[in-house]
Amino acid sequence: MINEFYKARLGGKSVIRELSEYATARGQEIGYENVFDYSLGNPSVPVADDYTKAMIRLHEESDPMDLHGYSPSLGNTAVRGIVADSLKRRFGVPYETKHIFMTSGAAGAIAHALRAVTKPGDTVLGFAPFFPEYMPYVNDTGAVLRLVPADTEHFQINFDELEKLFDDNVAAVLINSPNNPSGAVYSEATLKRLCDLMRQKQKEYGHDIFLISDEPYREIVFDGKTVPYPSAFYDNSLSCYSFSKSLSLPGERIGYVAVNPKATDADILAIIFGQISRGIGHNCPSSSVQQAVAQVIDETSDLSVYETNMNLLYDMLIRLGFTVERPGGTFYIFPKALEDDAVAFCKKALAYDLILVPADSFGAPGFFRMAYCIDTEKVKRSIGAFEKFVKEEYKG
Amino acid sequence: MINEFYKARLGGKSVIRELSEYATARGQEIGYENVFDYSLGNPSVPVADDYTKAMIRLHEESDPMDLHGYSPSLGNTAVRGIVADSLKRRFGVPYETKHIFMTSGAAGAIAHALRAVTKPGDTVLGFAPFFPEYMPYVNDTGAVLRLVPADTEHFQINFDELEKLFDDNVAAVLINSPNNPSGAVYSEATLKRLCDLMRQKQKEYGHDIFLISDEPYREIVFDGKTVPYPSAFYDNSLSCYSFSKSLSLPGERIGYVAVNPKATDADILAIIFGQISRGIGHNCPSSSVQQAVAQVIDETSDLSVYETNMNLLYDMLIRLGFTVERPGGTFYIFPKALEDDAVAFCKKALAYDLILVPADSFGAPGFFRMAYCIDTEKVKRSIGAFEKFVKEEYKG
Repeated sequence: MINEFYKARLGGKSVIRELSEYATARGQEIGYENVFDYSLGNPSVPVADDYTKAMIRLHEESDPMDLHGYSPSLGNTAVRGIVADSLKRRFGVPYETKHIFMTSGAAGAIAHALRAVTKPGDTVLGFAPFFPEYMPYVNDTGAVLRLVPADTEHFQINFDELEKLFDDNVAAVLINSPNNPSGAVYSEATLKRLCDLMRQKQKEYGHDIFLISDEPYREIVFDGKTVPYPSAFYDNSLSCYSFSKSLSLPGERIGYVAVNPKATDADILAIIFGQISRGIGHNCPSSSVQQAVAQVIDETSDLSVYETNMNLLYDMLIRLGFTVERPGGTFYIFPKALEDDAVAFCKKALAYDLILVPADSFGAPGFFRMAYCIDTEKVKRSIGAFEKFVKEEYKG
Repeated sequence: MINEFYKARLGGKSVIRELSEYATARGQEIGYENVFDYSLGNPSVPVADDYTKAMIRLHEESDPMDLHGYSPSLGNTAVRGIVADSLKRRFGVPYETKHIFMTSGAAGAIAHALRAVTKPGDTVLGFAPFFPEYMPYVNDTGAVLRLVPADTEHFQINFDELEKLFDDNVAAVLINSPNNPSGAVYSEATLKRLCDLMRQKQKEYGHDIFLISDEPYREIVFDGKTVPYPSAFYDNSLSCYSFSKSLSLPGERIGYVAVNPKATDADILAIIFGQISRGIGHNCPSSSVQQAVAQVIDETSDLSVYETNMNLLYDMLIRLGFTVERPGGTFYIFPKALEDDAVAFCKKALAYDLILVPADSFGAPGFFRMAYCIDTEKVKRSIGAFEKFVKEEYKG
């Protein structure tokens, strides 16, 4: 018999997917270049050239057994070492090979991190607004995701609400900075306060509480800043990374978990991830992709277009009277809708071929998300549509 | 806190891994060419040239967004269609795109198949001798693997024992033909009898019982035969495939599940697999690897060395008086040890630098496995060591 748990899910359709399908259908009518599709968080810049060169060279010159043979179950050992060195050099956390576990993107990283440090029934605390896939990521492990309501002013952490939700059952705290959907980057002050609180709670409850940090947007930051590295602030931390956004490789499914060397059981956590893999059928990302990313470990695609687009949209939104926090990174911006009901707002926008995503499913009703990983020319052309939309619907 | 369920596993070391580590260490002493390492089932022939050419061409010529962009969550749609066409053409089962779900090898395929058609507490029936990773594959879903004792004569199915174990709680039957470790290929008669019994049990218990068929060795068959295709015999069947062995790509983690078009809920099973992926962090195999295998869908590496090696070993074993069934495929042979205790037998063989795996962990005590995916020259050189071993230890 088909498993009813999964079957029951088929009814619920993702708002993002529905909007994206609408955009595609509308594009067939009027030309996709005329649809201002801000729905999907898909990188819009090509992969770094050096990655392509590395893959071609590997296929031309490597021993096929080395290139395509089984990786050890924790990932290619040399690749793990290169990742450890890079993180150590960049963020000052003394990772070694044994602390790195290669995964199928950030989704795989989070799947392993969660299973390793929670058991069914445990609470995982997350923060609104949040990436909706965190729901199945957490809940399918048997743990339960509880959401701290949003700090809707600056999209840092609402500490009053966090303290209210913290109890003895909390096994892990899941953060995402730079943040999808808000574009916010947690400040050092935010991270320090969060980690101080977590240390205090570990003491109070007498057990480990892990910080699981989802960092696919780590390399996409604006205004010349860098992202404070969460693991530098807290020993029991697991950094979950994906090369999807930094190298524009989302389809290649390549990332890792980095275990803080001072975490409880730091020396065996990667081995435990390997045990988890046996049951969930993961068994490593592609061996050739692992070897290719290792050759370009500190490179990124040309990510500058995202900042260009952000500036265009931010300036426009401010000019049109939106309440919006300036994103510190990612390729998202997260303004307040011009009416309380963001679903209604986004529906009206469709008449102007503006595809905006209401943030109800992100846990922040009244806001909407724009994913500006699209051509700058299209962003520019969308501004007229936006002005018309706001003028006719809200200032008419 | 670290999850104790996974932590508890760390003590148990795989016999195969231990032997393989011994072989490596011994190789450092006397030269690996002098260690007759029959422990690991790792393909020993290079990937098909056309695959390499396809990968290089894709990286040189494709739009990087198409090559590296997110696959739809069920796999690249065109690739799924190509897989469906190939299976339909080869085996006469009328698959369409919607019946194919791309996975990270056979491990990923089985992980999804099991979760889709069982619920925690259900029984999955397997057959000794069996691939030991079936234990975590099944048991980590919450279902329970129960093993039908081996038919130690021909390594077909012990139907008397199967009927004894069959009850209302059985949700799926897991088969593997050609078989690791026995090398046996289920005959048409075996498959027909199994499927007749399953149809009868479906009727008797009033619910679906799925056949999950693990087929990574489908293309490695001997004596000019072909493998009867299990899905052709039974509607409720899920074929789990990997390109690891046929194309020598184990590290690339690429395979699929093919849902029989006549299965219950055949049109939504792939979509359910997609739902399962959300929780286990799978989200598709590498996009470029998917596209490359699709270009060589009906090709294999030059697999003839496995048959050459099998013939050499089979003839030697028979000559030396072993009881052994002639393998129909795979790169394994599965003789009876020359004493009741196969562990003791394999231990003695180590003194002759013969690395043989006792089959206790495969559920067939008294037998041992030889993985002959090694150079033919080494197989030839091992024969002298084998003769000496048998003569000195058992006929001295």
